[in-house]
Amino acid sequence: MAASSRPTIHEVAKAAGVSISSVSRALNGNTSNPEMVARVKAAVKQVGYVPSAVAQSLKTQQTGQVAFAMEDIGNAAYLAMVREIQPLLREDGYRLLLHATGADVQDEIEVLESLAQKYVDGLILCPIRVTDRHLAALRSPAVPVVVIGQLPEEADVDNVRTDSRQGARLAVEHLYAAGARRIAFINGPADTVPGRLRHAGYQDGLHACGLEVDDSLVEFGGFQVSAGREAAQRLLARTQPDAVFAANDLIALGAMHAIRSAGRSIPEEIQVVGMDDTTLAETSFPPLTSVSLGSRDRGRLAADMLLARLHGETGPARRATVAPSLTVRESTREAAA
Amino acid sequence: MAASSRPTIHEVAKAAGVSISSVSRALNGNTSNPEMVARVKAAVKQVGYVPSAVAQSLKTQQTGQVAFAMEDIGNAAYLAMVREIQPLLREDGYRLLLHATGADVQDEIEVLESLAQKYVDGLILCPIRVTDRHLAALRSPAVPVVVIGQLPEEADVDNVRTDSRQGARLAVEHLYAAGARRIAFINGPADTVPGRLRHAGYQDGLHACGLEVDDSLVEFGGFQVSAGREAAQRLLARTQPDAVFAANDLIALGAMHAIRSAGRSIPEEIQVVGMDDTTLAETSFPPLTSVSLGSRDRGRLAADMLLARLHGETGPARRATVAPSLTVRESTREAAA
Repeated sequence: MAASSRPTIHEVAKAAGVSISSVSRALNGNTSNPEMVARVKAAVKQVGYVPSAVAQSLKTQQTGQVAFAMEDIGNAAYLAMVREIQPLLREDGYRLLLHATGADVQDEIEVLESLAQKYVDGLILCPIRVTDRHLAALRSPAVPVVVIGQLPEEADVDNVRTDSRQGARLAVEHLYAAGARRIAFINGPADTVPGRLRHAGYQDGLHACGLEVDDSLVEFGGFQVSAGREAAQRLLARTQPDAVFAANDLIALGAMHAIRSAGRSIPEEIQVVGMDDTTLAETSFPPLTSVSLGSRDRGRLAADMLLARLHGETGPARRATVAPSLTVRESTREAAA
Repeated sequence: MAASSRPTIHEVAKAAGVSISSVSRALNGNTSNPEMVARVKAAVKQVGYVPSAVAQSLKTQQTGQVAFAMEDIGNAAYLAMVREIQPLLREDGYRLLLHATGADVQDEIEVLESLAQKYVDGLILCPIRVTDRHLAALRSPAVPVVVIGQLPEEADVDNVRTDSRQGARLAVEHLYAAGARRIAFINGPADTVPGRLRHAGYQDGLHACGLEVDDSLVEFGGFQVSAGREAAQRLLARTQPDAVFAANDLIALGAMHAIRSAGRSIPEEIQVVGMDDTTLAETSFPPLTSVSLGSRDRGRLAADMLLARLHGETGPARRATVAPSLTVRESTREAAA
């Protein structure tokens, strides 16, 4: 904030105790809540906010569209973000377009480059691999961009992240406390940022619990249900785990299917923990214990950052981190006394 | 076809026994399959195909983007369509953008109207309510549009449909054959096209089996998991069904959750059938018997129709219908002898 002496819409939102989109709606007359309008007007006066000329000129170029690019819309973690981002943008008059990139680097770069065609006013991007080409394309995008995911420290981009390494450690510690000693790990691709961090967190957890790292307990595959099922089949064919930590809920669903098909009970014989705490975790059988990486919070924060830029906020790149937490359900046992 | 004497890319595809996107790739030199190129070239010669001037001019205006607008990307039936449409378009050099409209009529109309901004070259639209405003906006869209869903006979739009009424009847007849006599129905909203047709098909099935229509066995809600769970709770609180037919797999998942939570076994005490035969049906517990409405086929046909228009095909609107079928899994019993 030191770089900019001019008050921003962020400060108005903070002073009023409301979201940026609420400020925007109140200022644009798009709300029927008079109490909200009064609070926002008071906050505008308090911080001395003046809508910027950039914001005014942006308004005239508007397409009214914002894009959200993610790997796979079949992944409920992204769906949770969409469910949070879309209403916030809509309240502010923006329509959300989704790109499913299949984690294809070329596709993601093309999405970034196509911003120059100005078919959208802004972009929220979730890359699972971050290459030099990403960083180059992010250096001067044609419209505001917010990245959800891990970026190098030097990247000058608005960024929302989580700590999936810490989240993986939470999962292992929970399984250990519930009596598991042969804790397997079924990961997505090892060459992705989430894959690398979750693997590191799994090892952190083993160390913290005083368990040995045993590579025969680790499998890699894709981040989808079918990949999780196949990886669990390979795992069960060669070793006897008493718990499986899966790098996301889709992998966990596939693994539970393979475990049941092998005639093993969950959680009595094999406990299972997923990651992302999606709606699938609630409706699976048994309901799945899962590490929440705050997808909804990450979506909301990214939408807020982007809306601030669309309203002309300048200043240095912002960064926010959402802490992981564990939601315990019936696929794991009670912690041993 | 009588309206146009000039051979179309459709006819080339038919003569070569390949898809339109394969023809397009072969003609544009975007394939490494020489056998395919030879077949397509032979077919071009055979039918006397000449790429149209319209196609040439379209090529120069291209944005390289196509939009797919559907109610809810959390619904795996739409996801199955995306999984089919996206690779076909990508092979032909198009990037797919997704719009989740929440079945909001205003939003769908705005998507149609925004086509005039030419941010995409074509649109595939899945409305679940079809209003006069839809029909008016579909009358002269700025770019080619294909509709997946039920349209009035007079609508002059490329259209892919299924027969969900017949599909609902299949579900009821299967449950009757497996011994069910109190077959409940959990529907989505009654004022939607799918809701209306599935309800009619449920009644058709009861009549065909000689069962009475009993409105206390019918519940309405939304097409999501949580709505299905709540509707099943209301149902079980007031009556004793021995089977539940759910209007889609998400509703069925929610209903199975409510049934298990009420201490009832599936399929021994209550059999369950879903609709759409999504990947969720395979991984649920127990795996869910479901009516397939050919989502993948509908996606593929819609992509083919749109690609034909993008390659300059003129002529009257096309229509294709995909027949329903039943995939039997463990949530229902064997047919009684």
